[in-house]
Order: sequence, then structure tokens, then C-alpha cells
Amino acid sequence: MSSNEKIIMEKEKVPVDTIDQDPDIFIPNVSVDCIILGFHAGSLKVLLSKFKVSDKWMLPGGFVAKDEDPDESAKRVLREKTGLNDIYLKQFYFFGKKGRIGLDENVEMLKRSKLNHDKVNWPLDRFISLGYYALVKYNEVTLQADEEYEEAAWFDINQMPELYADHKEIIDTATFTIRRQIGFVPVGYELLPEKFTMPELRCIYEAILGRPIDRRNFQRKMLSIGYIQPLNETRKVGAHKSPNLYTFIKEKYDEAERFGIQVMSNNF
Amino acid sequence: MSSNEKIIMEKEKVPVDTIDQDPDIFIPNVSVDCIILGFHAGSLKVLLSKFKVSDKWMLPGGFVAKDEDPDESAKRVLREKTGLNDIYLKQFYFFGKKGRIGLDENVEMLKRSKLNHDKVNWPLDRFISLGYYALVKYNEVTLQADEEYEEAAWFDINQMPELYADHKEIIDTATFTIRRQIGFVPVGYELLPEKFTMPELRCIYEAILGRPIDRRNFQRKMLSIGYIQPLNETRKVGAHKSPNLYTFIKEKYDEAERFGIQVMSNNF
Repeated sequence: MSSNEKIIMEKEKVPVDTIDQDPDIFIPNVSVDCIILGFHAGSLKVLLSKFKVSDKWMLPGGFVAKDEDPDESAKRVLREKTGLNDIYLKQFYFFGKKGRIGLDENVEMLKRSKLNHDKVNWPLDRFISLGYYALVKYNEVTLQADEEYEEAAWFDINQMPELYADHKEIIDTATFTIRRQIGFVPVGYELLPEKFTMPELRCIYEAILGRPIDRRNFQRKMLSIGYIQPLNETRKVGAHKSPNLYTFIKEKYDEAERFGIQVMSNNF
Repeated sequence: MSSNEKIIMEKEKVPVDTIDQDPDIFIPNVSVDCIILGFHAGSLKVLLSKFKVSDKWMLPGGFVAKDEDPDESAKRVLREKTGLNDIYLKQFYFFGKKGRIGLDENVEMLKRSKLNHDKVNWPLDRFISLGYYALVKYNEVTLQADEEYEEAAWFDINQMPELYADHKEIIDTATFTIRRQIGFVPVGYELLPEKFTMPELRCIYEAILGRPIDRRNFQRKMLSIGYIQPLNETRKVGAHKSPNLYTFIKEKYDEAERFGIQVMSNNF
């Protein structure tokens, strides 16, 4: 991660519904973890946060309040971390294996937190995590973190730091899920600005499919399925390069998503 | 449902990990629900169970023991209901909305159960359900139910009785999920016997996609993707009908599933 990518905004305090929260508000043993994906400078990024009392980065997460739907909990987490309200957000998997959260790791965090850990021991419980992924426009996000307790930063999905507990597995499962759903999920539409170039779109597909894609084959397929419309515009990126710009036909994606009928396989 | 489809096996008692179970064994507020799909007599079936104290059929389900992974809980439920150990089983969604289980419905069931409902009130808690679907070979299943408390039966997926709580929505979400994943999930392989006819396979795809599929188009596509191999055999089904038999090349499916790269879209 380059230093200019690591932005820690010092904002007025936002609720930190984690270690120092009253457990009676929440459903016990259930947490929510959010994979927030953005696209910037030619690469797919994931938003991570880190408690001051921990050495490891983790997925932004929280708990499900007794009067909340899990979707609402995930939206709350997203709002707290990104400042955004209206986000493409999907549940994708739950993570509930017995040993998924290392007990030692949490004991150490609890000690460092200076909480009275004779009284506060529910963070040492077993948790079943409900996994959500979110697709955001990088430029619209304002990273937010409670300065006293935590920091937040974007990381390239291919260059992540060591992660807390099973959070690497959660991220891998999210990208694998999106890979399988790429015929329905409007990844490009959600991650790119209104006007984009074909290499930008291909770059996202390559990151999610985890392999290079043939340039011509990709362009031909993308245009043939009718999700994407060429514009009569180019973007000036260098003395000799002015790639064509494209835009999405969102309705087509919506239809595919609603009926579960994809118009392409992910086999480029 | 025809009467010969409704089989209630009276077996030695199997554990009923539901209304009369000690709640301390389980993670609170978390349940597991299983959609068990089978194929029989030309239609897709779902296995349902019903408590004697309830008027409504429901999905076979249970809870997650404190020393169990959720996958193990689902396997336990499947074993208890079908007698089978080695089943194609996948988690597909979680269901956690606040009002998803009608309180009145459960109060009524609890009353009828003759349990001391001043003491036993945890079935009235809010539950987050972890949804699993299973694909089984209908003929291998031996329906099992605790004769004193419940019954079990197969229902045609298009002719289901009124269901408990949000279980209809859970089934609909399962079929929708399989519809989207049909390029990866070996539905035919898991549901059909080793040798099958093309109309049998098409029938399964039609049930999952929720619409008729053109016979010739389907056959051509199925053969071209290389998952299916024609055998040099026919089946005698009538004086003038002897459809060809086919078999699956399982390795191809395994590969698609492992790498998340589908070899066809679901757009027949």
C-alpha cells in the first residue's frame, strides 16, 4: 500500500459497535462482516479497518441489533465506514466454523483494550458471521474511523496485509462468489464512473476472475451481449492514446438479476 | 400429493432437536433449515416435515450445537430425515429478518406441545436461519420421522401445502440460487440415476429455471458442453418409444465448481 492510499480521516465520533458496546443490544453469537470493493488507479481495492489495540487489519463489521434486520446492520456498518447511504450490497455466505476466530487473538485484544475483561467477556464467544459484499464508487467514499479506536484504509486486493481471524478466507469467498455471479452482478456499473474505457472494465473482470483475459475476445463479447453501449467520445490519456468511452445499459443487468437468467457465462 | 407419496416411516426414535430439547446445547438465536430436493416420476420434489402440534408443513431443520460447525448441523438434520450420510449439500443464504417467524404461530405450537411454557420460552426468540440445500437421489432416501412428534413427506415443488413461517420464501430462494448456479452445480448428476434420458434431464432444468425449454436447443447445448456422454443404450418405455440413455462426466462439473468458471450460461 502506498502512503497516499492510506487515508485516515479524523471525523467526529461515529458509533463503534464493537468491543466497548453493551452486548444486550445485540443478538448474541452473530456478527456481520462487509467486503467493500472499489476500483481505483487500475486495480480492485478492498476497504479494511484496524483497531488500535490490534496488530491486524480486518473487515469492517459489527453486530445485529435485536431490533434490526441483518441487511440493516450491514448498511449501518457501510454508512459508518464510507459515509455512503445508497450502496449495492448483497449477502453472499455465512462463516460459522467452531474455531474460526482465534481465541488467543481476541484475549490479547481484550487485554490491550483496558476493558474490565472479568466483566466483559462476550467478545470471546463463538460468532457466526453473516458475510456481505458491497460495490462502491471509490471516489464517492470518504473513509471514516473513530480516531481513538481505529483506522481505515483501502488495500489492493492482490497486496493485502495479514488479516485478523478468517477474514482472508471471507474475502476470497466473496471474490469467488462474484466470479460465479458475474453474469448477473453489475460489477462494472457499480464500480466504474458513468463513462469508462474497455481496458478499465476488463481490468475489473481480470481481478475478479483471477486471470488475464484476451483483450479482443472480451471486447467482442461485452459488446455482443448488449449491456454496454459505445459512446461517440474518447478520453485523452496521452499523446497517442485516446481510448473510446462506453456506458452501461443498466436495465439489462437489472433484468438478468431479477430473473436469474444470465446472458453470458463467465468463460471469456 | 398422492397418498403413496406420503410415507411416514415409524422407526426407532431419532433425536428431535427441536421444541423439547435442552437449549443450553445450542447457539442461541441461530437455526439451520434444509431444502432437500429429489426427482421422481417426472417432477422435482421437496422433502417437508410437520410437527403433530402444528397445522403447517415446514423445512426439516434444527439448531447448531455449541460444539458443531453449521455444516455438521445440516448434515445431522439430513441424516435424521433421510437416512443418508453422503449428500451433496451447500449453504446458499441466511434468513434473518426481524418478523420472519410469526410469534403467534409459535406460541400456539408451544401451547399444544404441553411443555411448560413458563419455563420453556426460547422457541419464541428471534432466529437467524442458515439455509442449506441438498440434492439427493429420491430412491435412496428412506423417510424418517419421530412417530410421536412429527411426520415427513415429499411434495411436488409446484404443489406445496401451506408452509410454516417464511419457509416458502426459503424454498423459492433456494431454487432461484440453483437457477443462477446451474452452470456449476451438478443438479442432474446428483438427482438422476447413473443412466438417464434427455427428457428427464430437461425436466429438472425446466423445474429449476421455472419455464419450458426448447427440446432440441437443450439437447444440442447439453451435448456440446461436454458434461454428458451418450451411451450406446436405449430404455424401453413403450411399444414405440425407446429413448437414448446418457451418463455424466462428473470431472467436468467438479472443475467448473472448483474454479468458478462455468462452461455455459443458463440461458437456454
